[in-house]
Amino acid sequence: MPELSTLPAGELAQLHERLRTRYERFRALGLSLDMSRGKPCAEQLDLSNGLFDCVSADDFRAADGTDCRNYGGIEGLPEARVLFGALLGARPEQTIVGGNSSLAMIHDTVARALSHGLPGGEGPWGRLPAVRFLCPCPGYDRHFAIFALFGVEMVPLGIGPHGPDMGAVERLSAEDPLVKGIICVPKYSNPTGVTYSDSTVDRLAAMPTAAPDFRILWDNAYAVHDLTDSPPVLKNVLDACEAAGHPERACVYASTSKVTFAGAGVAAMAAGPHTIARTRKHLSLRTIGPDKVNQLRHVRFLRDMDGVRAHMRLHARILRPKFDAVQQVFESRLGGKGVAGWSRPQGGYFVSLDAAPGCARAVVTMAGHAGVKLTPAGATFPLGRDPQDRNIRIAPTLPPLDEVRRAMEIVALCVELAAVRKLLGEEDLAAL
Amino acid sequence: MPELSTLPAGELAQLHERLRTRYERFRALGLSLDMSRGKPCAEQLDLSNGLFDCVSADDFRAADGTDCRNYGGIEGLPEARVLFGALLGARPEQTIVGGNSSLAMIHDTVARALSHGLPGGEGPWGRLPAVRFLCPCPGYDRHFAIFALFGVEMVPLGIGPHGPDMGAVERLSAEDPLVKGIICVPKYSNPTGVTYSDSTVDRLAAMPTAAPDFRILWDNAYAVHDLTDSPPVLKNVLDACEAAGHPERACVYASTSKVTFAGAGVAAMAAGPHTIARTRKHLSLRTIGPDKVNQLRHVRFLRDMDGVRAHMRLHARILRPKFDAVQQVFESRLGGKGVAGWSRPQGGYFVSLDAAPGCARAVVTMAGHAGVKLTPAGATFPLGRDPQDRNIRIAPTLPPLDEVRRAMEIVALCVELAAVRKLLGEEDLAAL
Repeated sequence: MPELSTLPAGELAQLHERLRTRYERFRALGLSLDMSRGKPCAEQLDLSNGLFDCVSADDFRAADGTDCRNYGGIEGLPEARVLFGALLGARPEQTIVGGNSSLAMIHDTVARALSHGLPGGEGPWGRLPAVRFLCPCPGYDRHFAIFALFGVEMVPLGIGPHGPDMGAVERLSAEDPLVKGIICVPKYSNPTGVTYSDSTVDRLAAMPTAAPDFRILWDNAYAVHDLTDSPPVLKNVLDACEAAGHPERACVYASTSKVTFAGAGVAAMAAGPHTIARTRKHLSLRTIGPDKVNQLRHVRFLRDMDGVRAHMRLHARILRPKFDAVQQVFESRLGGKGVAGWSRPQGGYFVSLDAAPGCARAVVTMAGHAGVKLTPAGATFPLGRDPQDRNIRIAPTLPPLDEVRRAMEIVALCVELAAVRKLLGEEDLAAL
Repeated sequence: MPELSTLPAGELAQLHERLRTRYERFRALGLSLDMSRGKPCAEQLDLSNGLFDCVSADDFRAADGTDCRNYGGIEGLPEARVLFGALLGARPEQTIVGGNSSLAMIHDTVARALSHGLPGGEGPWGRLPAVRFLCPCPGYDRHFAIFALFGVEMVPLGIGPHGPDMGAVERLSAEDPLVKGIICVPKYSNPTGVTYSDSTVDRLAAMPTAAPDFRILWDNAYAVHDLTDSPPVLKNVLDACEAAGHPERACVYASTSKVTFAGAGVAAMAAGPHTIARTRKHLSLRTIGPDKVNQLRHVRFLRDMDGVRAHMRLHARILRPKFDAVQQVFESRLGGKGVAGWSRPQGGYFVSLDAAPGCARAVVTMAGHAGVKLTPAGATFPLGRDPQDRNIRIAPTLPPLDEVRRAMEIVALCVELAAVRKLLGEEDLAAL
């Protein structure tokens, strides 16, 4: 297939009519497909149904005899700290195991930094004239929403195959004391699927920063979410920071939301000793403790990292065909046409699709009218503003395989249609 | 028994020796009894073991078909909002059901008010030169700790048999726009056991306040925790506020921490429509949703308010003998001696003991040396400062009945001993 931009106007107009006819046929089907959020499907959730009965009325005590039903244990069950420490790449004593949401832990870290400051710093960030965070883009919309909520200025940066644009990261961090950190999804990045290289991790750990309390918020949400048998290995950021003489720099987060039950999993964080001590103190003023019964369920069900990895292979069996279907449809429908690029992730929950510049909003609108719900265009950029209006996040995990295929056919069609309409000089690309 | 203050010096000295000998005998036993925190005992927790198996791999859907294992539902399961709405005295649509901690919900309300403000107000409280909260005393130490954490100035007020000193509440609220609210445990107040009268609730609801965003933080932690068959009835503060034209004034909190599992229960809040809408919005930026599986467990296990009340009668059967033992020991050891007063609660988790002025710290220290751990003296006042050094919070729920009795014997002895030593003019009351 030749690149569409090389087609003469007449052929383009004919192509437009064919695509439009096809689009109308899809629209007439009255579909309702949701590709908008990274939710596990029911078949994945079924893999963890063992959680329901691995703690019982006869057996609710932790290894040290703690009655998990009662109050206490602000930093989590000892055995949960071991398991989640291993998942986070941290020692148990620098690991806090909490409730069901790592996003809440990230939110609370930002909120605490603003209200009280962080170890190594000079008081509450909220007293400064501004607080800035480096945001590799495209990135995770819910991260950006937390910064927006608290008025933290987001500095967008590019992200390439090895991670964020480290030249820009180093320059901005060194120059501006109001740059207080960077937020990262370092493995199978949301949505690009990028895993940071060793060099990226080392540079983040070692770089000089103007802010003494600079933090790397390391949302390792897809730490074990491999789709292949030879997954990339992410360098341990806590170790790298410690080795570089910045033991308090990294705050690492993960959860079992996409390992066990999305809504009823367990989240954890790890950080440097002073940061963890401060976090623990603050947590102890907010609550009497996390749900230890659910932590015990998770330790019994997953056991250890070998158990986690074996469990994740079962997830991969369900997910790989869906991710393959996305690739197959995009390749067959869009390959060689010069109207789109997309990621080929080895893990994680998303495919990042770049339509032709100026086309993403139109694609999402058109797909919506044809019954395919996508993450809003722009969502992967701070404040929802994609400067090129081209990035679209595809979340293929939730729908059944045939729906993924059908939805991707519609998305690919909309991408091509928008590109053709743009080449034809149409003003409103989505006005069909 | 005559009041000790009427005894001649010689008799006092003899009494002192007898008490001291008895104290040394207790100390020699090397006991270890914990009366410091309001924790349920194992027998109480056993009452809720039905939670372990009421949601299973075959049956994890909510009434509307929602798969409770997956993401979503920021305001809680519909049926959980009905149940907890009933518990809070609120409509389901003004009720948010969350994680396991109502304390965390209170903390987050205060944090949000400081960082973002509340509906009806003029922006973040944190921008004001000061923020003040009225704190009926003695009160709950963890409430005071939240205010201290955020630098909120606590204004201590007396609390009597009908609730807080309403004259002072009305005057301070009307005069000072920086008084942003009052914190209350309105039923079986921690630690006094007081239940607010209808008139107190009506005056709180109706009083003019200088702050347009004044809030009553209504921690109804012991809403259903009756020890008698004819419990006092607390007037509905949400209704009273609405009737008085202040529908956003009350924020109500409760949890099942002392109904089901202390560490693995469910918490909820209710408030006026604008406050709830704002809370919901903020929550949706912090997390993708609460643990709906645990909410479903609770709805299935407790069913409705009749189910809750029947369940709480089982708790009362376990707790009443312990509370009776406290009364019996105090009455027999301290009655008529003029050295102590104490509450006779009809519910809740505490007995409030007032030693002779200046004696509370000494009593707690002496009891500690004899193996009885009590809540630190002063804890029931802001910043741990009891101006009269007399209040001690007794938490009789956790230990077995015989231990409660023994611990109370020791506490009563220490109260009497401290009073005698004070009458004898000893400088260091605890220096035995």
